Amino acid sequence: MDETTVPSRYLQAAVNELSRLPSIGKRTALRLALYILKQDPLFADTLSDAIRDLSKVNYCKTCHNISDGDICDICSSIKRESSVVCVIEDTRDFIAIESTGQYNGLYHILGGVISPINGVGINDLTIENLVKRVEEGNFKEIILALPTTIEGDTTSLYLYKRLSRFGVAINTIARGVAFGDDLEYADQITLGRSILNRVPYCGMSSNKSI
Amino acid sequence: MDETTVPSRYLQAAVNELSRLPSIGKRTALRLALYILKQDPLFADTLSDAIRDLSKVNYCKTCHNISDGDICDICSSIKRESSVVCVIEDTRDFIAIESTGQYNGLYHILGGVISPINGVGINDLTIENLVKRVEEGNFKEIILALPTTIEGDTTSLYLYKRLSRFGVAINTIARGVAFGDDLEYADQITLGRSILNRVPYCGMSSNKSI
Repeated sequence: MDETTVPSRYLQAAVNELSRLPSIGKRTALRLALYILKQDPLFADTLSDAIRDLSKVNYCKTCHNISDGDICDICSSIKRESSVVCVIEDTRDFIAIESTGQYNGLYHILGGVISPINGVGINDLTIENLVKRVEEGNFKEIILALPTTIEGDTTSLYLYKRLSRFGVAINTIARGVAFGDDLEYADQITLGRSILNRVPYCGMSSNKSI
Repeated sequence: MDETTVPSRYLQAAVNELSRLPSIGKRTALRLALYILKQDPLFADTLSDAIRDLSKVNYCKTCHNISDGDICDICSSIKRESSVVCVIEDTRDFIAIESTGQYNGLYHILGGVISPINGVGINDLTIENLVKRVEEGNFKEIILALPTTIEGDTTSLYLYKRLSRFGVAINTIARGVAFGDDLEYADQITLGRSILNRVPYCGMSSNKSI
């Protein structure tokens, strides 16, 4: 889409900005901008305000999750099990785990995983804060819930080496064939590991939360 | 995605607003909002301004295209062939035709096509303005470039009936097998019509602009 063919510089500016978002190309950006144009002016104002207000988002000083205040609702809650901490990559994983309703402990958001190829080193993550938090805290269990990629595995191993000296149980989330999935469609690694990591039969799918 | 699991009301507001855009669900909206959060604050500000500025977009009083002023650049240009008008549905079609560089006439944007099912009647479109424009103007040719749907065909037929009495040539754009396409993959209606509407062989693909 040539700049000269867009009939308004405001439309062109909106297309340019929207197409800077991930997975939104010029055509999609144009479609979105024309859609916004067709709506009530309030629509554009509300959307515009919501995007601008994102700069008001804070980060929790304890767990580094996105938060409206200095300490997030989870870290300041007296209802959460404060002896368990789940180490995750980012806020999307936080939302995914919270959505299950199966976890009542605390979190620690690393902000990524160690990835020399992408220029992400140990100091780009919140690893030192986690080590300090475990050292000074009174945790019984650390759950590593990082991705099963080379980078995720490297990070998990590094965390294990740094944290194991504190005498805290270090677990990772169970991985295996998903509930309801047919064995024949599971990939070989998943099925293979789910056989190696078999657990005692307890009559039904376990559904107790921590 | 449950509202209670999003850790910031600003993030939640951005997700809610972004997911009101077409083909953007809650998960995509979350991904976009987190992406914006990770960028420089200037990114959110520029995007926010560009969206807000969309309300400054005007519509050309002559051709009803999106425009920064009361009369658009095309209608006010002395370089355009003012005896030809191309009738199209919306600004996206305008951009598509302008991008070809093959058309140098004027435009008329209908703002849609007649569609009783979607509640779009004759008075919801700029048909009366087009009739008045042709009646008062000095056009030699009208090109109908509306979609080949039932609604588009109905609209073209209605326009033909309203405009034919002015003694102006009324054409539609050529439809047929696309350049470079294999005949065996063309759909039956397209191939059938491209045989019926065959044109004299002129040695090569015609590439003259109006």
